[in-house]
Formats: sequence, structure tokens, C-alpha cells
Amino acid sequence: MRRISIFGATGSIGLQTLDLMRRQGGPAAFHTVALTAGRNVAELAALAREFRAEIAVTADETCLPALRAALAGSGIEAAAGAGALLEAADRPADWIMSAIVGAAGLAPGFRALRHGGTLALANKESLVTAGPLLLAEAARHGARILPVDSEHSAIFQALVGEDITALERIILTASGGALRDWPLERLATATVSEALAHPNWSMGQRITIDSASMFNKALEVIETREYFGVEPGQIEVIVHPESLIHSMVAFRDGAIMAHLGAPDMRHAIGYALNWPQRAELPVARLDFTTLGSLTFRPACETRYPALRLAREVMATRGLSGAAFNAAKEIALDHFIGGSLGFADMAGVVEATLAVLSGQGGLGNAAKALDDVLAMDVGARIEAARQATAFATRRAG
Amino acid sequence: MRRISIFGATGSIGLQTLDLMRRQGGPAAFHTVALTAGRNVAELAALAREFRAEIAVTADETCLPALRAALAGSGIEAAAGAGALLEAADRPADWIMSAIVGAAGLAPGFRALRHGGTLALANKESLVTAGPLLLAEAARHGARILPVDSEHSAIFQALVGEDITALERIILTASGGALRDWPLERLATATVSEALAHPNWSMGQRITIDSASMFNKALEVIETREYFGVEPGQIEVIVHPESLIHSMVAFRDGAIMAHLGAPDMRHAIGYALNWPQRAELPVARLDFTTLGSLTFRPACETRYPALRLAREVMATRGLSGAAFNAAKEIALDHFIGGSLGFADMAGVVEATLAVLSGQGGLGNAAKALDDVLAMDVGARIEAARQATAFATRRAG
Repeated sequence: MRRISIFGATGSIGLQTLDLMRRQGGPAAFHTVALTAGRNVAELAALAREFRAEIAVTADETCLPALRAALAGSGIEAAAGAGALLEAADRPADWIMSAIVGAAGLAPGFRALRHGGTLALANKESLVTAGPLLLAEAARHGARILPVDSEHSAIFQALVGEDITALERIILTASGGALRDWPLERLATATVSEALAHPNWSMGQRITIDSASMFNKALEVIETREYFGVEPGQIEVIVHPESLIHSMVAFRDGAIMAHLGAPDMRHAIGYALNWPQRAELPVARLDFTTLGSLTFRPACETRYPALRLAREVMATRGLSGAAFNAAKEIALDHFIGGSLGFADMAGVVEATLAVLSGQGGLGNAAKALDDVLAMDVGARIEAARQATAFATRRAG
Repeated sequence: MRRISIFGATGSIGLQTLDLMRRQGGPAAFHTVALTAGRNVAELAALAREFRAEIAVTADETCLPALRAALAGSGIEAAAGAGALLEAADRPADWIMSAIVGAAGLAPGFRALRHGGTLALANKESLVTAGPLLLAEAARHGARILPVDSEHSAIFQALVGEDITALERIILTASGGALRDWPLERLATATVSEALAHPNWSMGQRITIDSASMFNKALEVIETREYFGVEPGQIEVIVHPESLIHSMVAFRDGAIMAHLGAPDMRHAIGYALNWPQRAELPVARLDFTTLGSLTFRPACETRYPALRLAREVMATRGLSGAAFNAAKEIALDHFIGGSLGFADMAGVVEATLAVLSGQGGLGNAAKALDDVLAMDVGARIEAARQATAFATRRAG
């Protein structure tokens, strides 16, 4: 029986993963090793009981008593804190879902590679901030990383059975986000609620705003470069408002292989869960008789400066992905908090990268995860400084 | 060096195959065994000289003296007639292009399977009329058949590296042909020149009319059933006017893999020529920033009765594909000749199938190519009778 651990079990990806496991036989079909969550210990405990996990871990140590209470009599171990997350990752598992959001998700996923199994990677930060480290660690242990988001799963599927050296271009599709039809000059005035009105995908607040600003796509461009090992110039972004083509691969013979499906994360989750097989999934089937049309627009870098910044990050490489991601997180915090305008987010990230670049070391390769985490902290401090400066200028 | 023979060298497919070979090194890269053609012996001889073929064959015995004269001093053998075509197919080759149009193309391709190499199959009749025979012969000799038309090549490419048992649906795209925007009630009045105004593909007269009537797609549906071994109910046809998605495969996990590219036969020819590699091809690259949109409409069986007839043929199987194809050819002759209306073509085919079905044996499996060829002849005679009856009723 496959041994499975899920990091971030109560988030959207974690819950959908568990639901697919439930439909494929649940605890009778999978041996669940560890389930981890943030503070939602009630749900974590219920899932751990349902899937008969060996251990349940809350990231927050203050939640440990509540978790212990919720698991009383189940025989399931309870643990808490960052150290416990790593210990959970050390428990042998064949298939590990890395779905903790943010920099906190990096270390457990990295650690789980030691088992030489499959890491289903939903944590975006891992490849953006520590791509080369992660891939080297996977190679060292004979582990496999499978992408869990629609775009990279689509690209992965388009490459099945193909020779990667025949790849000419990767075409990442982007919905264009909530503000895609706004006139350029109005963008700066967009509010949080306006940026949250995503047309296709139902996602969390942060990623929905990142979709409107294309910072999400910028991260995906960098992930694409790292994961598939292509040159930055081989990656194109195209706005495809219907979000039915999840991404495409163009080969040197002119053929383009595209992955289409309903906008449903279970495509990518289910593919990673069942790879190399394709199992029946409870996703809506596309019906081309009623679908109408698929449309495309250029992804303009004036409208979406995040895409331009992604190209700079790919040119610099080294620790710049970690700096970019951290600065974006801080800028997003300030936009959500109301102190930054929508268009200021890119300004803060750009200014942060400029300052850190001037300090030297941005292009240095990370030798260990600690280098990445140090850059993450440093960039957050600098970005907060930049955000305050932008806010002051705005108020003045 | 790969040994290559091309049956139908001076037709559109043959010429494009030779042009791709020319770009990939020509006679320095490929050993050309046999080139065959119809009556265009001047071009055949020129190609045979350029590619240093062992033998050039004209299907028409009266053209032999001209072919001999054109090859004088080249050292290239000349031959003529149906027997010579089969002898050419008997010459060992690793890769054989079967691109003779019509029932005449069946036997040489069938014969060439004996070498256990690759048969690049552009001849539509082969799979429609003799699919099970052809596939059994290929299996017996360890030969491989690669499809050479846009749709089946697209499906083949979408299945690379995939488990065919995970296939849920095949979605064949159709341009809808020259008359796709005509009101249904006007279709019966369409003239030959109106049916020839194909919007996307530049093809021969017969296939362009078959595209307008969807008889071409009906043949492709039957080919799909035979080649990929799927159930008729798993095959969908969708009208996609832009002809940029060449076909799609839907898997049981809801994923749809699509092949996109410019409407250019060199996609399929080049793929078959270089399989399992993908070589650089001189085809236009799709640019999604200027492409606009991809649209889809249902393929209505009232507008396109050929699709309904294809389902009947798949239900009957046996020799009905041979009867269907032969009757379609005769109906098309009569439409081009002016004695049948556009909508009468389907009527003639349907009436022919009904008469042959009443005579029994339509569902019998072919035991040898002769059974197929006998049905071909019989169906042509019956279809001519039906066409005359339709024409008489029309005139009366």
C-alpha cells in the first residue's frame, strides 16, 4: 500500500487531495503517514481519524493541546511546530504532497525528498526560491518531483513520451485576472475587492490578487524555467481568458501539444496522485458543442510589469527568486492592508530587487536552504522599507 | 541509411514528403528504393534522378516508353502497371509512404508491410476498407503503421507515452468545409465550384468536396475506429472552422490533449518521416498573440448525413467500409459530372448500402484483399445504378 503524507492537509489543495484519495478507496487504499495543518486542528484531527494517519502535526505550538484533545483515544500521534513538521517529513513515505503555502512549505518538502519517492509540489515558493537546490536534492536521492498546478501539470503532460530536446517553446496561459479588461490608466486605482473578482478560478485571496497583478504568472514563469530546464526566452505567456487551455508545449516540428480541461485543480492533483497512470477523476468534461470559443491576447508587460521582473529574475538567477518572492509577499500585504496601490506592488518589488542587487550577492547560487531563508528575511525587511516609502510618497 | 519508397510520389503528399527529405539531406541522407506515380512520368523521372532511386514505376503501362526515355542513361530502372507497383513494394524498404489515392493504393501498402518496417499511411481507403486485414498483416510482420493525415497524426501524437486504456473520447475536428455557413435548405443547390471554396486547406478537388459534404470526415471517423481500436461511441466530431486544433484525445481523468498547428500537411508527413523523433520542420509557427480565437460548433448530422452513415458503417463493419467508400466515390463522380445534386450524394450512398445490405454479406469480415476489392467493384456498380435513378428522378 502506498505510504502518503500531506503537508497542508486542511488547505484547498490538501482537502482536494484527500477527497480524491477518499474516492479511490480512502484508508483501505492508501496508508496515510502524516497529515499537517496550521491552526485548524479540529479539521486536521477529523481527517487524521478518517484516514487513520500515523501522526497529525499542527504548525502552531499553541494548538498542540487542542490537537491532542481532538485525537484522544484514536492512537494517532500529535505534534506541533516547525521541528515537528520536519520530523513528520522524515517519516518514510512514497508520495508526499507539499501544499503548505509560503516559505514555510519549503523545508518539509525538501526534507521529504530523502525518501526517494514522489514529491507532489504545490508549494510555489520551492522552485522559485530554491529550484536548483531542490532538483539537485531530488536527483541525489532518486526522488521525483511532480508539479501540482494547472500550468506545470499541463506542460508535464504535454511532454509525456516526448524528447525534451525537441522542445521549442513553452506557452503558459494566464486568465489575465480580474482586471484584465480595465483600461491601463485605471489599474493604479484598483481596490482589493476589485482585484479579487477572479472570473474563472475560485482560489484564496492572495493568489487571486497575484493573478490580477500577474505576480502569480511571474512565479510560474520562473518555476517553468527551473523545473523544465528551459531558457527564459523559450517561455511565452499568453492571456487566455477562458482558462480552458492550461498551457502548451511547442516542439521544433511546429507541433503544439495543449492540455485542456475545466478550470479545476483536481486535474493537476489527480494527475500527480495517479501518475504514471490516469485514473477516473470527478472533474467536469469539456463539451465542445457548447463551449463556443477559446480566445487569446498578448500579455502586455506594461500592463503586467511582474512579467518583466520575472525575466530580470531569470537573468540574475541565484538568490533573486527568493528576493522576488519575498518582496512580492510584503508588497501584497501592504496592498491588502490598504497602504499600497495596486500598481505600487510592482514598484516595491522592483525597488527591492534594485537595492539588493546593489548590495551584491543577489546572483549567488544558494548552497543550502539557509541561504534562501536568509535572503527571504532580508528581502522582506527591505521590501517593507520600500513599501513604507511608497506609502509615504502616496500620502504626501 | 534508411531505405525509403514512395508510392504516389508526384501527388501532393508525395511531393511534400520528397521536399522534407530534400531539406533533411536528400539522397545523401536517404536511400530511395522506389518512386511511383501515375502518368506524370516527366516529374517522376526528374525526382528519381534527383533522389537516385533504384526504380521508378508508372501505374499506366502506356507511359512506360516515355518513362524509359526520361530515365535514359541514369541507370534507374523503369517499370509500369499494377504488377510493377507490387514488385516495387516487394523491394525491401524501412519506410514506405503509401500515398496513392483510391483503391489502387491499397495493395502496394499492404504488400510493403512484409518488410516489417514503417508504413506511412496517407491512403485513406486502406483503413476504411480493409482496416482489420491491414492491422493483422502489420502485426504478423512486426511492421508499424503511422497515420499521415492531420487528424490521425494529431491523435497519435496526443497518445504518445499514454496508456490507450485511459482513453475516454477522441474528438476529431472538422473545418466544416466550404458550405458550413450555408443555410440548411440551400445545401441541396450547391454547385461543384461552391463546394470547392475551402476556407483553410488547399487540397485536391475530390477531397475538398468530400470536406464540404463531410464524407471525408466520415472516412476519418471509420479510420479512427479501426486504427486506434476505440468504440464508435468514443468518437466525436466537432466543427472547428479555424482548423488549428487538428484533433484531440480526452482521457478518463478529464484531461484533453490537443495537437495544434498551422493547417499544413507537412506536420503529419514530417512527424511520420522522423518518428519517434521530432525534427525541425519548415511549417509556420502559431503565434497566439495574433491568433485571436478558436471556435467550435456541433457537427449536425442533418447537415452532414455522411457522419450518420459512418456510424452505420461502424455498426455493420465487415465489408461495409469498402461499400461505403466505393459508393461515395461514384456519387462524387456524378456530382462533379453534374448529374447529381450536392445533397444527393448521401442519398446515393445510403441507398447503395441499403441494397447491398439486403443482399447479405455486407457485415462479413474480409478474409483477403480480394474480398475488399470485390466489394469495391460491386458497390460501384450498385452506386452507379442508384446515381442514375437519382438523376432520372431529378430530371423528371
